[in-house]
Amino acid sequence: MGAGLLEVTVDLGDRDYPILIGAGLIGASQTYERAPAGGTAVVVTNTTIAPLYATRVAETLQRRHARVLQVVLPDGEEHKNWVTLNTLFEALLSQACDRKTVLYALGGGVIGDMTGFAAACYMRGVPFVQIPTTLLAQVDSSVGGKTAINHPLGKNMIGAFYQPRLVVADLDVLDTLPDRELSAGLAEVIKYGPIADADFLAWIEANLDALLARDKAALAHAVKRSCEIKAWVVGQDERESGLRAILNFGHTFGHAIEAGLGYGEWLHGEAVGCGMVMASELSARLGLMPAGFVDRMRRLVERARLPVQGPAQLSAPRYLELMRIDKKAEAGAIRFVVIEDLGRAGVRTAPDELVADVIEAHTAA
Amino acid sequence: MGAGLLEVTVDLGDRDYPILIGAGLIGASQTYERAPAGGTAVVVTNTTIAPLYATRVAETLQRRHARVLQVVLPDGEEHKNWVTLNTLFEALLSQACDRKTVLYALGGGVIGDMTGFAAACYMRGVPFVQIPTTLLAQVDSSVGGKTAINHPLGKNMIGAFYQPRLVVADLDVLDTLPDRELSAGLAEVIKYGPIADADFLAWIEANLDALLARDKAALAHAVKRSCEIKAWVVGQDERESGLRAILNFGHTFGHAIEAGLGYGEWLHGEAVGCGMVMASELSARLGLMPAGFVDRMRRLVERARLPVQGPAQLSAPRYLELMRIDKKAEAGAIRFVVIEDLGRAGVRTAPDELVADVIEAHTAA
Repeated sequence: MGAGLLEVTVDLGDRDYPILIGAGLIGASQTYERAPAGGTAVVVTNTTIAPLYATRVAETLQRRHARVLQVVLPDGEEHKNWVTLNTLFEALLSQACDRKTVLYALGGGVIGDMTGFAAACYMRGVPFVQIPTTLLAQVDSSVGGKTAINHPLGKNMIGAFYQPRLVVADLDVLDTLPDRELSAGLAEVIKYGPIADADFLAWIEANLDALLARDKAALAHAVKRSCEIKAWVVGQDERESGLRAILNFGHTFGHAIEAGLGYGEWLHGEAVGCGMVMASELSARLGLMPAGFVDRMRRLVERARLPVQGPAQLSAPRYLELMRIDKKAEAGAIRFVVIEDLGRAGVRTAPDELVADVIEAHTAA
Repeated sequence: MGAGLLEVTVDLGDRDYPILIGAGLIGASQTYERAPAGGTAVVVTNTTIAPLYATRVAETLQRRHARVLQVVLPDGEEHKNWVTLNTLFEALLSQACDRKTVLYALGGGVIGDMTGFAAACYMRGVPFVQIPTTLLAQVDSSVGGKTAINHPLGKNMIGAFYQPRLVVADLDVLDTLPDRELSAGLAEVIKYGPIADADFLAWIEANLDALLARDKAALAHAVKRSCEIKAWVVGQDERESGLRAILNFGHTFGHAIEAGLGYGEWLHGEAVGCGMVMASELSARLGLMPAGFVDRMRRLVERARLPVQGPAQLSAPRYLELMRIDKKAEAGAIRFVVIEDLGRAGVRTAPDELVADVIEAHTAA
């Protein structure tokens, strides 16, 4: 199966932007036609992605910008902090980049989050373009305008809501993605089914093998449908005051796993995969969904080669403690995204004992 | 003369906010009625202002918020940087401040800029209230939503456009303002005349002695009219793409003086005062204004006890060099705000030789 060019529009009033999805995009001039023209383009990438794709992107951008610079940052979540961000600011300032400079974020979620936040802050805001190179970034972090860096006291604590002008989701770059990261991306793809689209959940179940085999047409549909759902949710609630919370299905449990093990031990998508199983269990225990739904979700997460059991070293009380300091908690109350019906999610609180039971039911002995 | 409560609305669509202007405001409960209610209020102030006003503000806020914290930062432009900002983030995170936390910026421009930027970034945005304690902050930095910190390579380079929910301009707090800072604030008040309101310029000339004597009614009118003009300009052009540039009358020259001498040597308002004389001269040399306008502006700036001559140690070529790296320059072209008619400003470029002549005409031998 081939994959033509697909497009999703993120509709945010005066800050609409297109997501282009297809093969062979990053080296094609017409891909960038809807990026702002300007004197200087800065390709911000990391040491892993730079040797693979940076030259191709930079050479293509030279047809659109008078000057193209590259800034290569260290790779890894542990570098998503002020020190690395400042490296980028220093490069921009020392190269006399002005307010018309366009930043191109070429990388996964970490590069996207940092470059987006840098774009939000540099001279109080310059335009930026996302070129996500992981499935996770293509379906999740490149849509919705959440940018951030980590603080030693909490993940993503310092950031901004800031929208890109264009997102380029090139399916070819997923060819070089490690299997483990492909699976982590599929966790977020799976998420969109139960929270918003029962048919999409069935489609994922039917096409999971093709997705794992990196079939371009299957990936194109998965990315497109995921972006459509996320774009719809974000369009309703850009600043995360209500509906947008449903995108965090599996994330309350998942964040506790990530924080409890130390960030980087499990990939974000792995923690979300396991977290979705727990959140499905919670939905069932609250009487919202039948027990069969938990089995269905667990099987799908497992087929995607993601963990379905929490790590043995994290106790239920430790989860509760970590969840209470999550930035989505309000006045100490933990808010859980639950499935209320296939394709519809809601936010609930739950008694600590019930949450502990749920965790223990899905934790390795 | 007494001063009743005056109010100016900054009209920015869904982000309207009121500026309250009057005496005795900071200790009155009703002042804060239009601030967001919420669990935690954090009064962010500095070591100079804290002993004078922090307790009064904090005690008043206790009637509105369940918890009121104080964070006292070091005083001075040299602390408007990431290190100080991070002190604030650490205080917020270690005290488990959530997304409903309201930050109250109690201080001058530095506290306002840093607290506003912290509010813009903390958990991707929490509400904040400005309580400006200098005349400069009351008429300038508290209106318009510009927040920032400095970078070693440039002033205000890292920041955001982020609007407060409420601004409280209490004229009583100006009683403790040093004379030099009162004059610096008057520079920005004077600015609003030539760029937007010829009658206001005449009013300032007629009432300058009362302003210098800190007459409350005169100050109230000066603050109100300044905020009205700035609010009108910002309402037309929130993101500084066009009209808003006129607020920088005198600032292109002024920033060069500040940067050339090292920040802190001259106060910002002092540099702007002298810069306005130079910008008036430029307007005359470009044939836009009569020579008498330059004399009129120079006399008024001088009466406000502000410098009217540039520092002897800065040469015209050095000004030009510094102006070219200002973040308002575009592709190396320096953009000057000039007066085209009394009460109307525009943006022009000018030949280097002419600019050098202008600088030399107003520089101490």
